[in-house]
Amino acid sequence: MRAVVIATPGDPEVLRLESVADPVPGDGEVLVDVSTSGVNRADLLQRRGAYPAPPGAPQDIPGLEFAGTVAGVGPGVARWAEGDAVMGIVAGGGYAERVVVHESVAVSVPDSLDLATAGAVPEVFMTAFDAVFLQADLKAGETLLIHAVGSGVGTAAVQLARRAGARTIGTSRTGAKLEEARALGLEAGIVGDESWADRVLDQTDGRGADVILDLVGGPYLAGNQKVLAPRGRHVVVGVPGGARAEVDLRELMARRGRIMGTVLRARPLAEKAELARRFTEDVVPGLAEGSLRPVIDRILPAAQAPEAHRAMERNENFGKILLSWE
Amino acid sequence: MRAVVIATPGDPEVLRLESVADPVPGDGEVLVDVSTSGVNRADLLQRRGAYPAPPGAPQDIPGLEFAGTVAGVGPGVARWAEGDAVMGIVAGGGYAERVVVHESVAVSVPDSLDLATAGAVPEVFMTAFDAVFLQADLKAGETLLIHAVGSGVGTAAVQLARRAGARTIGTSRTGAKLEEARALGLEAGIVGDESWADRVLDQTDGRGADVILDLVGGPYLAGNQKVLAPRGRHVVVGVPGGARAEVDLRELMARRGRIMGTVLRARPLAEKAELARRFTEDVVPGLAEGSLRPVIDRILPAAQAPEAHRAMERNENFGKILLSWE
Repeated sequence: MRAVVIATPGDPEVLRLESVADPVPGDGEVLVDVSTSGVNRADLLQRRGAYPAPPGAPQDIPGLEFAGTVAGVGPGVARWAEGDAVMGIVAGGGYAERVVVHESVAVSVPDSLDLATAGAVPEVFMTAFDAVFLQADLKAGETLLIHAVGSGVGTAAVQLARRAGARTIGTSRTGAKLEEARALGLEAGIVGDESWADRVLDQTDGRGADVILDLVGGPYLAGNQKVLAPRGRHVVVGVPGGARAEVDLRELMARRGRIMGTVLRARPLAEKAELARRFTEDVVPGLAEGSLRPVIDRILPAAQAPEAHRAMERNENFGKILLSWE
Repeated sequence: MRAVVIATPGDPEVLRLESVADPVPGDGEVLVDVSTSGVNRADLLQRRGAYPAPPGAPQDIPGLEFAGTVAGVGPGVARWAEGDAVMGIVAGGGYAERVVVHESVAVSVPDSLDLATAGAVPEVFMTAFDAVFLQADLKAGETLLIHAVGSGVGTAAVQLARRAGARTIGTSRTGAKLEEARALGLEAGIVGDESWADRVLDQTDGRGADVILDLVGGPYLAGNQKVLAPRGRHVVVGVPGGARAEVDLRELMARRGRIMGTVLRARPLAEKAELARRFTEDVVPGLAEGSLRPVIDRILPAAQAPEAHRAMERNENFGKILLSWE
């Protein structure tokens, strides 16, 4: 099969389309013919050598998600059969024509969702759903603050929160991304300059946000502490702005607040299976009926993986960039 | 009635025994003749003017807990009658011969527990129970790390964790306090010098602590991040060492860890009532049968409140200091 391989750690040009051996499904695993592979910010880190894949995942093929068609099953697989449309997250190896996943972590692609489009779903919708609902327990009537709301996870979170009856406030460094997020249901958009925290307080009559979905990290920590509502949950899913910052534990106590770190990639299989189950139950129906929709910036042929990475590094995409294998 | 009043913010000598008006129980409230009032570190802050009582609580009478006998009830009280032995937390006004509390936050003192002794129970056992179990969800087989294990909350946490089948590791700046904590069931005691974090890792085969009960704050934050186990919960209940420190959000993500701030004092009545209910159900039986016991350093007459504060400021007590009204 063909796969996008990291020839050596470095700039986007180190990504090469190469011929590699097909993966073979083991016990309980399915082989998937990939339609599209989503590109994620973590892939850029991995390409530069800064975010190695966990043990057991392919080390030199990046890619954390896929959508495609089941092409074969290993021993003991009961849930899926050849031809089924599936999507899911993987710990690595997603930039390939074929992937192997455990049957329990694959999620059915509803008929009403185009298979190529589905490649934009798993990482961002699972990350947002898990962080905002399963970890931070956002409830109807609460306010969700989403940093980097124009990102894939951000646009998924806006839709999931709106569907759950929560209020959304988003920040972005780019006014145009805020406009696009408004079209998805974002209620208040704030440009992420030095006064963003004051404006979040203005928007909430001084109360702040019940849940903060943080895709920025260190530089926003002081502001996040300031705008965290009583009993608020600040969930950190990415730190592209930097990881270290001063925290004020007394502020955290006074608000009875929580700062929660989360990642999907390193979870054990049983937890990934549980997430896939909850996701199938709670989120897939919204994708099927169209109340939730993946936001796609562009679909590029897999051979253009370097261009896909460059576009993400320039921060120019609104929504997902996909690599196509068709 | 007599009460210990803060004449003006300052040193322990500003605490004066004075005659003040008796409190009057309103709807749903009970009047309690206090046997003993517990002394807490927060009282020292309040005495210095650094921790004002929340609105509605007496501003100039410190004291967050009591044990005593119901002396009267307000309209609508169904749960208690004159003569009942009760204990509980208050948002202020505890250093007094009489206190008024809502009937829903009073907790029954079991017959087998001496009433004077019971004054040492509410703040530390409720704080430890709430933080370690209701907030941080410590489970049997997990490891609890307790900083300042010789404190009232620390000694309560050791006993509660042992009773729940969890393993305990404690730090203290004083070796003698570690010895005393061992007598209560502490499994591993570590002197809180610059190498404490390495020794916690040694004690746990490198895995770290599932729950950290933090009564120190900023100076231990880097160490706490280092010793937090995967999916660990770090719950901050006091920051006498300072509130500010650098946090590494990437470390928190990698561990899928949580830093949780908590306080009892500022909670709304309904939450305090819920805590009293859970406490009555889960903890009071242990106090009744003797598997949990309050640790008392000394009981002083209320007139010696300045000496009680001095002793706590010198950090010389192991367990609670109580003021007696008898």
